Amino acid sequence: MTDTLLRLEKTIAARRGADPSMSYVASLLAKGTKKAAQKLGEEATETIIAALAEDAQALRGEAADLLFHLMVLLADRGVPIADVLAELDRREGVSGHAEKASRSGD
Amino acid sequence: MTDTLLRLEKTIAARRGADPSMSYVASLLAKGTKKAAQKLGEEATETIIAALAEDAQALRGEAADLLFHLMVLLADRGVPIADVLAELDRREGVSGHAEKASRSGD
Amino acid sequence: MTDTLLRLEKTIAARRGADPSMSYVASLLAKGTKKAAQKLGEEATETIIAALAEDAQALRGEAADLLFHLMVLLADRGVPIADVLAELDRREGVSGHAEKASRSGD
Amino acid sequence: MTDTLLRLEKTIAARRGADPSMSYVASLLAKGTKKAAQKLGEEATETIIAALAEDAQALRGEAADLLFHLMVLLADRGVPIADVLAELDRREGVSGHAEKASRSGD
Repeated sequence: MTDTLLRLEKTIAARRGADPSMSYVASLLAKGTKKAAQKLGEEATETIIAALAEDAQALRGEAADLLFHLMVLLADRGVPIADVLAELDRREGVSGHAEKASRSGD
Repeated sequence: MTDTLLRLEKTIAARRGADPSMSYVASLLAKGTKKAAQKLGEEATETIIAALAEDAQALRGEAADLLFHLMVLLADRGVPIADVLAELDRREGVSGHAEKASRSGD
Repeated sequence: MTDTLLRLEKTIAARRGADPSMSYVASLLAKGTKKAAQKLGEEATETIIAALAEDAQALRGEAADLLFHLMVLLADRGVPIADVLAELDRREGVSGHAEKASRSGD
Repeated sequence: MTDTLLRLEKTIAARRGADPSMSYVASLLAKGTKKAAQKLGEEATETIIAALAEDAQALRGEAADLLFHLMVLLADRGVPIADVLAELDRREGVSGHAEKASRSGD
């Protein structure tokens, strides 16, 4: 289970060249960064709505959608998920408000 | 590295009871679902902006922020990240537009 | 032109009771607050994307979409646009950073 | 009251050249499109949260914030609010699902 994101990254890479009419991932990537970013915004909104509705089942599904479309956006921009996870690991040592300070530029 | 999210989930759980003035996670969780959801929305916006700016380094950092705050929101609502990853795994077999159909209810 | 929002509010109110299969507004209002909020989030994302793409024509259209769906969400929650505009008027006297301070609670 | 947005547009234009340390509008515009877009995303999120919380007073304030930051983003990109309102007027004649079809390209 812990390898889910790395495996998903490989699946997305494999589908990139597929027929857009046959593959959702291929159709998203063919439309470019704006489309992938738009989907991320939609799924973030739906995740927020599910959380506020206190609907755990919906939240699980929307969070999965959000992760999926984040992976597609990262693939579109050529950023490996390993780099994102490494960034989280790097911050792991830092704690509390110090961590937040190291995260945000302003 | 693949265990990053599970480890982060434990860290968030451990900090939940900390002094909100000492821990960013504790301060977020003390403010409740609305605050955690608000942060998720902010980080999603910043992820979109970094992607459209074609700034890979900023995207890596903003995606890490987005994952971090998604984990906080899941913790707030009591949804284990393992359940979200299992949902992604479940969809993994399904491919292309069929996958999208299985994902979206409407 | 300055009466656009007040006129739009009346149109939305008039369509509220229409057949959802015949009226987009009626179909949104029939689905409730979550759907109206979801649409607002989608249009905000598209407005951001159009602005960052420096596409003035797209921005004009997306901003109109955003205003339209904000009006639908306000109608769903029973908040008159006049109250929102009055709130903007109230802040008009206040200037600069003082204005921001009067706006944000935290 | 109906002139609120046009008046606000003039105020924003007048403050554009002000000292960023003295004017919130000037400080936003000095930071450019990304900052203005980020604020729009934040305020859209807060509007969604207020609507779902069924908090009419908060919704009125957040909707005012959203309109304000939409006006700043339009100013940043040089799109007159009159053009956006004219676009809404243009659609006004069109009704129901036909209207939606005329709005969305895909």
